Formats: sequence, structure tokens, C-alpha cells
Amino acid sequence: MSTPNILVNFKAFRESMHSGAFEIARAAEEISRETGVSIGVAPNHIDAYYIVKNFDIPVFLQHVDPVSFGAYTGHIPVDSLPLYGFKGSLVNHSEKRLRIDEIRNIVSRMNDLGLVSIVCSSDNIESVALAILNPTAIAVEPPELIGTGISVSKAKPEVIKGAVDPIKRIGDIKVLCGAGITTADDVKRAIELGVDGVLLATAVTKSKNPREKLMELAKVFKF
Amino acid sequence: MSTPNILVNFKAFRESMHSGAFEIARAAEEISRETGVSIGVAPNHIDAYYIVKNFDIPVFLQHVDPVSFGAYTGHIPVDSLPLYGFKGSLVNHSEKRLRIDEIRNIVSRMNDLGLVSIVCSSDNIESVALAILNPTAIAVEPPELIGTGISVSKAKPEVIKGAVDPIKRIGDIKVLCGAGITTADDVKRAIELGVDGVLLATAVTKSKNPREKLMELAKVFKF
Amino acid sequence: MSTPNILVNFKAFRESMHSGAFEIARAAEEISRETGVSIGVAPNHIDAYYIVKNFDIPVFLQHVDPVSFGAYTGHIPVDSLPLYGFKGSLVNHSEKRLRIDEIRNIVSRMNDLGLVSIVCSSDNIESVALAILNPTAIAVEPPELIGTGISVSKAKPEVIKGAVDPIKRIGDIKVLCGAGITTADDVKRAIELGVDGVLLATAVTKSKNPREKLMELAKVFKF
Amino acid sequence: MSTPNILVNFKAFRESMHSGAFEIARAAEEISRETGVSIGVAPNHIDAYYIVKNFDIPVFLQHVDPVSFGAYTGHIPVDSLPLYGFKGSLVNHSEKRLRIDEIRNIVSRMNDLGLVSIVCSSDNIESVALAILNPTAIAVEPPELIGTGISVSKAKPEVIKGAVDPIKRIGDIKVLCGAGITTADDVKRAIELGVDGVLLATAVTKSKNPREKLMELAKVFKF
Repeated sequence: MSTPNILVNFKAFRESMHSGAFEIARAAEEISRETGVSIGVAPNHIDAYYIVKNFDIPVFLQHVDPVSFGAYTGHIPVDSLPLYGFKGSLVNHSEKRLRIDEIRNIVSRMNDLGLVSIVCSSDNIESVALAILNPTAIAVEPPELIGTGISVSKAKPEVIKGAVDPIKRIGDIKVLCGAGITTADDVKRAIELGVDGVLLATAVTKSKNPREKLMELAKVFKF
Repeated sequence: MSTPNILVNFKAFRESMHSGAFEIARAAEEISRETGVSIGVAPNHIDAYYIVKNFDIPVFLQHVDPVSFGAYTGHIPVDSLPLYGFKGSLVNHSEKRLRIDEIRNIVSRMNDLGLVSIVCSSDNIESVALAILNPTAIAVEPPELIGTGISVSKAKPEVIKGAVDPIKRIGDIKVLCGAGITTADDVKRAIELGVDGVLLATAVTKSKNPREKLMELAKVFKF
Repeated sequence: MSTPNILVNFKAFRESMHSGAFEIARAAEEISRETGVSIGVAPNHIDAYYIVKNFDIPVFLQHVDPVSFGAYTGHIPVDSLPLYGFKGSLVNHSEKRLRIDEIRNIVSRMNDLGLVSIVCSSDNIESVALAILNPTAIAVEPPELIGTGISVSKAKPEVIKGAVDPIKRIGDIKVLCGAGITTADDVKRAIELGVDGVLLATAVTKSKNPREKLMELAKVFKF
Repeated sequence: MSTPNILVNFKAFRESMHSGAFEIARAAEEISRETGVSIGVAPNHIDAYYIVKNFDIPVFLQHVDPVSFGAYTGHIPVDSLPLYGFKGSLVNHSEKRLRIDEIRNIVSRMNDLGLVSIVCSSDNIESVALAILNPTAIAVEPPELIGTGISVSKAKPEVIKGAVDPIKRIGDIKVLCGAGITTADDVKRAIELGVDGVLLATAVTKSKNPREKLMELAKVFKF
């Protein structure tokens, strides 16, 4: 397993920072153990080290900076991730876009360090372009659907379809999809379209019962 | 005490991330206790929560984003700082500059939340302009001296002098100075120029013996 | 006259680029001549040189970059403005925000070169902070009112009032106000609040008859 | 001809703004006429419209913004280029880098409008990734060689070789190379490596005799 089947992006929601983050991490750990489905978390930078030390789940950062160690106040160097045991990072999320040369540098350095890079893209053409940079995975997320509850796998299946095959032809690159993934049915449809996993946020972080929601979604992968 | 006499910015140096960061934090805690001089630390985002939980010293972030809680992947909301017990944050460090409207929003929200905002500036005019925004402190740091070992208090005393009086006339705002502060003598000169404290990085983080270096500098405040 | 009584920001509207821009420039020239009221224009970078060569009115850029001549593809150096006969530039417009150190550098260099710097701000505190940098003028423009047709002079008089006196105490700095200024009455109210001029865009650029609209607004200054 | 054999980027040099720009434009026009070799110019935004109106050569912008017409102070909308007769634009020059989603939007809109997009890249992998976005041309320019006089075609032939074939396999996309191109020999080597043209700046703009230099380089294409 290089990328999880389900990756939960905690963003900077009140519900998924500090104690809320720890609860979701615990739920992810338990459900992953019970179901055998791999669930990763991408907590806020402030919570990330606490979670990697206290829970047995793959931890990803939400963003990493295109620098190595040095005089970079307020930055997270790619090179620092192995020190903490982080598995990898989201790169170029639509809420934290990067320049193409920055993505290139980050992915290249993450590959050298054996880290998992999950590069986000807005549409199928961007997905294929970014796949050329040879990341571990591309996460297709049409920004206009993020946070809406309208699932990309239902509303824009062509964006996923148009990405999966061309990406797989380029190399051994995983494809995740995100944006609006909320129900077991959304996940099922995404799998049918050929993705290796799903990236989601509000469906879990804003759920009244994140544990139950995670269980519902994990079961889809469990057959 | 609202701002520390000595604030150590850990930046993203290999020597002051992870275990190195924890050692400097321990040294700061011990020397602060022994001398009674207030020493604060500004560790990397990844180390910050570990340090605030494990050491009895004021912890500042190196940077905070001009947002409140929400769908902000890769951001640190101002509003999240109290959850973790952080004392405050550096704002607008020369390695992480911000737009004027962002500084305005951050400082205003930090004031509402009772957080300590230490806004960095490059010269005396910028210092006075930023003081109008009513932060807790202004840290004057001519960028061309940062990391050089050439002390601002010796090489550019006029930048500090030209900032201290005008700032104090604007309101109850602390003045720190930084850039090249390395020796006890540099600190003495800074105090003579009227500053309330010093902001430093490499002098401690790159020192062969950070504990000793911190003791040397702390003693200047102890008279 | 260092700043015009009326400054029209052409932005990048279809109606005020190319031929539309030239028509508004001609109207501004004629009405300025007829009424004696000083009217300046801030056309798009592409139209600016054509307008300064063909019309007898003060031309301002909408933005200038914090660099001098050099290898800066896609940038407009401050130092180049006198070559073309531009009077000055808007700086830090809410649609083109700058970092505080960039504003500082631009204003300082524009002062050296005898250029008119009109620095935009969002509220009264930001206005006073930016006045410390000693620009020719501060243009107060609450971003939430820009383009709405709801005039700042009616909807937020306190933002203007709270800026005028403190700015005038700092130095010989003009105060303009903008955002939603649409009618002669809006301009009257602005003048009563103590401003030296108004900055506007849509009221003129989107008007069916820009010439008539400019005449309506210019008359307010004419007695 | 969709892209010129020689494209001269005027950047923001004192020597190639205003009167200097017009002289180089005239030289380009004359030599193009004499030799039949297509020479394009990318002047500063301020000079661009004057040059397109007064000289019979293809004019490119140095940068264009990922917006259409609207309330975008200080921006150049893609949609405005046809109004002025510009042929196209450089996109993502190393001195004006863009985010991947911005490049995607600009190229896609330029294609709709029949404009020539010349997207700059730093190395061969980035080149191939950007080719997926289907621009008119990719200009490979290793940033570390820009302005050095050390020619990419001699110092880093592998960067060009590694780009040409993969790009040509993706589609009908031209390949230019730049960075350090100074002599006829540099151009010859570039052509041997398979490029369709060269992008250069200082070789011409800083030359004591830009006309002579252009003639020297144009002759290589004339065989």
C-alpha cells in the first residue's frame, strides 16, 4: 500500500483541529483495524506530530514547502518529513495552489526520500500534465464541487474517466478522486470509474458521527 | 510580561527541528528558571504543539494565516492558537512576508483573542507604520543583516533608535530588535538603544552549545 | 495640483480598454478643460502610453512593480514611469495588493523620482499606517463596497472621517476616497468629509454616457 | 508560421524600454524583411501597443493574466489581446512564474482565441508536463543559465534533447529554447538539437549593436 483507500483531509475546521482531530484519528485507526481498509489522515500542521506519535495510521501533511532545511521561517521543508514519521503530503491542493516549478521540485525530492506525494488537480488535462512529474498519486478534485456534497463521481464522471487511463499509461501512478464524496454510493461509483481511493474532508469532519461515516465508506472497499 | 526578553526563532534548520528543537526548548526552560529572564521560543509548526505540551516556556508560532477556522487546507487559523496554549506568533517575518491587509487582519484578531503579535519590519519607517496597526510588539530586523552575525545593534543602531521613540509615542507597544544578534555585547547595545527584547535565530540554533549561548545572552538582562 | 480631484480607474473592463479607453480619456480631457476640474485617468498598462501621448490629461498606472530596470519579464519598473510621462501610479489597489515592504520600496522610489503615489487602503487604521510611508495620497476604499454602487461616503462615512484628520496630522498627504461613488451627491458627501478627491471606476466606465457622468461629477468640484 | 524563429524578450531593461525598444523593433522588422527569417518581439506591456501599431512584426506580451475582462486593476486579460493585434504571449516565464491551474486556464483560453501561447519551462520533465496543456510552443529555459551568456544549447543539450522528442510525440507543439543564447553558433547547435526557434534577451537588448547581432543570428535560419 502506497496510498490509502480513504484519505481524510482535516483542513482547518474547528471540528477537526486539536481534540476533534484526535477523535477522528482514533476512529480512523480503529476502523482501519476492524475492516482492513487503509485509511490515512491529513491533519493540520499543528496536530500532525501528535497524531503520528499517538495513533497507528498513515499521516500525511496538507502541504509542504519546496525547500530543504534552512532559514525558512514559517515553512515546512520536504526534507523534514522523515524525521517525524510522516508518510507523505498533499501537494497543490486547490486551497493551497503551487507554481509548476514548485510542484516539480517537491515531487522530485519526495521521490528521492521515499515519501508519498499526492498531487491535486482540477480537471483531467491538468491531471495528466501533473502525472508527467511522476508523483505517487494524482487526486482529481474539481474545485467547484469541493465542500458542496455534490459528488464528483456522480456529477463529473468524465473528469475521472478522462484522467484514469491516460495517467495509468504514463506510469505506476495511483489515482484518487475527491470533491463532494459523501456517501457509500459516491465511493462505489468512484471505484467503478477506476480510482484507487478517495480524498474527502467535510463528509467526515463535519459529520455528527465521524466514526460511523468512516465505517460506512470503508465498507465499500471491503469485499 | 507580554513579550519575552529573548525570543529564539527556530526557523526550519535541521539543528532546530525535531530532537534539536526539543533540546533548545529544554535549555530555554532551564535558563529561564535559573535566571528569571523570560525566554520564548518560536519553533516550526510541526514541533510547536509538542513543545508547548512538554516545556514550561512561552511558545510562539513563526507564522499564522489571516483566516479563521474553515476550509483552508495547509493554513493555520489565528483562531486556533488558544486551543493549543500558544502565546502568540511572529507576523510578517522577512522570510514570510504578508500583505498589509493581511497583517491588519491578523493583528486585529490576535488582539481580540488576547494573543501576543510580534510584527517584523525591515526599517524604522516600516516599523512605525506597522505600529499603527497596534500589535503587541514590533521586531525591527533589517533583512540584509539576518543570519550574518553582524549585529543590527552595532551596524545599524539608527534603525533601532529611529523606531523606538516613535513607536512608544504611538502606544504601549514593545520593541524587539533582531538580525545578527550574536554576543552578550550585541544584546547590551540593543538594550541601551531602548529595546524591550531581542529576536534571534542562528546565534542559538547553530551554536555548538545552545544552552551556554542562551545563558550568556540571558545574563545581560539579569543585572 | 498633485493629485486629481477625480481619478478614473479603467481596470480591465471591456468597456474601458482600447477604443473605450480612448473615448473616456477624450471625455476626461474635454470636461477638465471646460470645467477647470482636474481629472486623471488610470488606464490599463496596454493603453497607458497611447493615452499619455494623445490626450492632455494626467495619466496614472494602475499598478507598478517594486523593481528598478532589469531582467524582470512581465514587470513595470518604477524607474520607467518618467520615460513615458506618466504622472504616477495607484499602489496596493485591493485587486492588486502588495506586501508592506513592497509598498515601502515603491513609495520611497516614487518620491525620489517626483512621481505621484496614490496608495489604496481598506479601512481607516490601514490608511493611517500607510500614511506613515509618506505617499502623495491615500485612497480609502473599503473593498466590500467596490463596484456595488453603494457609496463609501454614505455607507461608511466613519472610515473616511477616521482617516482624514490622522493622515493630515502625519504630513502633507492628500486623501481620496473610493468604492461605490456614483452620483454627484456621493461626491458632495465625500468632500464634506474632508477628502481632496475621489477615485472611481464603474460609475464612469460602465456608464451609458461616460462624458455626461463625468460632467455631473466634475461640477461638484466647480465653485 | 505560428511561432517566430527568433523571439526577443525585451524584459524591463533600460536599454529595451521606450526609445530603445522602438529601435530594436525597427531592427527586427528590417532584418526580418531582408532575410525572410521570422523575428518576433516581446516588449514590456507599456511599449507593446506602440510597437504593434508602428512596426510590421509579430508582437507578443511578456505575460498575461488568467482572467477575462472585468474588475481586475493592474491585470492584462487574455481576452484583450486580439483588440490590439498582439500575436500571443509568453506564459510562465521564470521571472513571472504561474500556478499550474493558471497556466491551464490561460493556454486553454488562448487556444479558443487563436492566440500563440509560448509556455516557458525549466527542464525537460516540466516541458513535457506543460506540453500536455496543449500550448502553441514550449520554451525550455533552464533558469540558472538565463542572462549568463552560457548557452543552453552548449551547456545543457540534454535538457533540449530530452524535451523535443517527447513534446513532438504529444502533439503539434513547437519547441523553442532559451537561456544564454548569444552567438550564431549557439543558434546552430540549438537547431541541430531539433528546436523550431530560439528565445533570447540580453544577447540583443544589451548588445552595442542590436541590429548587427540580430542579423548574425537570423542568418543561421536562412541557409
